Amino acid sequence: MAFRTARNLAYFSNYIRNYSTNGPLVNVTVNEKSGFATATLQRPSVNSLNLELLTEISHTLQQLEKNKCRGLILTSASNKVFSAGLDLFELHKPNADKIKQMWSTLQEVWIKLYGSSYPTVAVVNGHAPAGGCMLALSCEYRVMLNNFIIGLNEAQIGFSAPMWLIDGMRNTIGSRQAEFALTAGTLFKTEEALKIGLVDEVAQSKEEAIEKAEKFLNKFAKIPPHARSMTKAALRGANIQALVRNKDEEVRSYVDFVTDSQFQDSLGEFIELNLKQKLSK
Amino acid sequence: MAFRTARNLAYFSNYIRNYSTNGPLVNVTVNEKSGFATATLQRPSVNSLNLELLTEISHTLQQLEKNKCRGLILTSASNKVFSAGLDLFELHKPNADKIKQMWSTLQEVWIKLYGSSYPTVAVVNGHAPAGGCMLALSCEYRVMLNNFIIGLNEAQIGFSAPMWLIDGMRNTIGSRQAEFALTAGTLFKTEEALKIGLVDEVAQSKEEAIEKAEKFLNKFAKIPPHARSMTKAALRGANIQALVRNKDEEVRSYVDFVTDSQFQDSLGEFIELNLKQKLSK
Amino acid sequence: MAFRTARNLAYFSNYIRNYSTNGPLVNVTVNEKSGFATATLQRPSVNSLNLELLTEISHTLQQLEKNKCRGLILTSASNKVFSAGLDLFELHKPNADKIKQMWSTLQEVWIKLYGSSYPTVAVVNGHAPAGGCMLALSCEYRVMLNNFIIGLNEAQIGFSAPMWLIDGMRNTIGSRQAEFALTAGTLFKTEEALKIGLVDEVAQSKEEAIEKAEKFLNKFAKIPPHARSMTKAALRGANIQALVRNKDEEVRSYVDFVTDSQFQDSLGEFIELNLKQKLSK
Repeated sequence: MAFRTARNLAYFSNYIRNYSTNGPLVNVTVNEKSGFATATLQRPSVNSLNLELLTEISHTLQQLEKNKCRGLILTSASNKVFSAGLDLFELHKPNADKIKQMWSTLQEVWIKLYGSSYPTVAVVNGHAPAGGCMLALSCEYRVMLNNFIIGLNEAQIGFSAPMWLIDGMRNTIGSRQAEFALTAGTLFKTEEALKIGLVDEVAQSKEEAIEKAEKFLNKFAKIPPHARSMTKAALRGANIQALVRNKDEEVRSYVDFVTDSQFQDSLGEFIELNLKQKLSK
Repeated sequence: MAFRTARNLAYFSNYIRNYSTNGPLVNVTVNEKSGFATATLQRPSVNSLNLELLTEISHTLQQLEKNKCRGLILTSASNKVFSAGLDLFELHKPNADKIKQMWSTLQEVWIKLYGSSYPTVAVVNGHAPAGGCMLALSCEYRVMLNNFIIGLNEAQIGFSAPMWLIDGMRNTIGSRQAEFALTAGTLFKTEEALKIGLVDEVAQSKEEAIEKAEKFLNKFAKIPPHARSMTKAALRGANIQALVRNKDEEVRSYVDFVTDSQFQDSLGEFIELNLKQKLSK
Repeated sequence: MAFRTARNLAYFSNYIRNYSTNGPLVNVTVNEKSGFATATLQRPSVNSLNLELLTEISHTLQQLEKNKCRGLILTSASNKVFSAGLDLFELHKPNADKIKQMWSTLQEVWIKLYGSSYPTVAVVNGHAPAGGCMLALSCEYRVMLNNFIIGLNEAQIGFSAPMWLIDGMRNTIGSRQAEFALTAGTLFKTEEALKIGLVDEVAQSKEEAIEKAEKFLNKFAKIPPHARSMTKAALRGANIQALVRNKDEEVRSYVDFVTDSQFQDSLGEFIELNLKQKLSK
């Protein structure tokens, strides 16, 4: 297990440093003592998920997997927004080919993060609507700061969250709450999110949130990593396989939907009425 | 969207009025301001689901779908019984062909109500055993008056709720509570039903219940209807498709079961011992 | 229904008595008044599930099914350990053919107990890690004595609980809690297990636990047994069928896994560090 020796940790740490230089939208650091990586999203201004950021997240996850990461903390460089979700400006009057790549990369991010062999925590240190909530949900644990919002508000924007994300929501907060939340496109305040189980803990500062995240990761210190990853694969594998089987079909269907004028009208209206307002709160 | 213009609302309202004249077992009114329809079951004396009532409910749901209903409140004209469920007197010493049509129409009602594109609320203003509970469960929200009972008591009557109804129960109250409730055929009092999540709110009067139902429906006022219905289809589609695939097979199996002497004996006993007593409470 | 006449009860009771003489690892008694059977595991010292005990449990369940048992209470003759789970000493440096038979018989025990036509209660009167928790989970109700531990700690031992057991855990405590519990291999104290729903009631003595178990079984006194078993089959059938389809494949995969040196190393370490300590608490 490469990660368990100081030499390999150092190697990995260097590797990540080089990699971060090439791709500045995600900053990855590794705590050499614990072996935990922290991946910080830092695409100005609100970590909107465009193709470049999604590709870099996907690449980061692949490197962490390859280097036998012992645990990941996913967080944001902004102190206002964890991630604003899919870059709606790129979905508006889009290039169909770019939409295709975006959606396909979004699927890859879910597959790699939801299905990672290592334990994962989201430190939600800002708003997390739609794709931001998706990133948080794909982790195993969520610590959130006060006075932010989180939720799958896709219905408000004019479309439906994909099946794998709906399943992720259901597995987290249960079928009943998921139906309420998804049909209304609800954005929950931190305390509400805690109450329904959409987040696991609340912290008063990013430092406190990181501590809580590390405490969660440390729970697994004595579990043989291969047994833990087998167990996680057994728990999450069926959902991932369902997406893998349906990947291309789903991409086609989303591209058709997004490029349709009905959605474009809804989206245009949503951007006008809500977007800047929501994100500037 | 037909429903959004006054002209079309009036047309729909007239249409329903004519339709109601032809089939007096369900009374449908439309609030022209909100666009919400209220369907009131009014088959004397306890809204037992016989073939005629089931057919009329199914027809009503189809018309609401066609006319782009903005929301449905399902309730009862009785102040004692929401619906007593399948008409057990028709299941007792039955005509096999009628049973076949009844079950097939019951499936249609579930498919149309559970899968409706518009939001739905049951105002449970009376007892709701078995098929009565099924109607309530197929809505998205349940407001119930005090001092009544609701539940899937099929096991008490001598058979099993069908798979789609079991799934509906599980999605509402969770697997654990559903197993308890279904194996014991439990009928819950209003307050117990609220506690386990089988109903969402309690009201002191039908008027208050209708207000709460409208408040629920109004939550979706700003959600684009096509996005909401896509989301609902994603959430509920798998269960509906499972029934659609198994529809004929299930009809055959229920007809065989119901016409068998073992069930007929159980049913005869149940009718003697419980039925009038339960419903006259 | 054989069980309902005194003559047949006596016959069954005798039969079981003879059977128990042949297989002394499970003691079965039948309360002639209630028709409830009590199966007491009595393999010294901690009811570790070796091939012999698993075979006898499987045989017992088959006889109970054949003789139309009205309800089963599963408990332990030890006042410290309900069951310590799979006999890890037999998994350590194993005979591959014996492992194959053990796993296959474990599957049979699950299929027969989880899918029994009669209602089942575990009186957990001692520690119940791993396979001990599995036996408890496969019942419909769990009454546990204070100051013991229960849970699926397979990840700690170095492997993953099988899919059917994961599903059993999810159906009992929900997806979210199941993921936490399984990835950490958590062993819960009695009060914690009650809180998350892993057990249903706590008792202060075995006598009180048996009373509570009988009270649970008596809830079904007026439910026609065939309707109850149909309902249970509808609720649990899909999970059982999934295992039946995958039975041989799973056996092969577990034998390969268990005989691999990586698992043997983990297991050796676990036995050294934890086993005697945990069980002697």
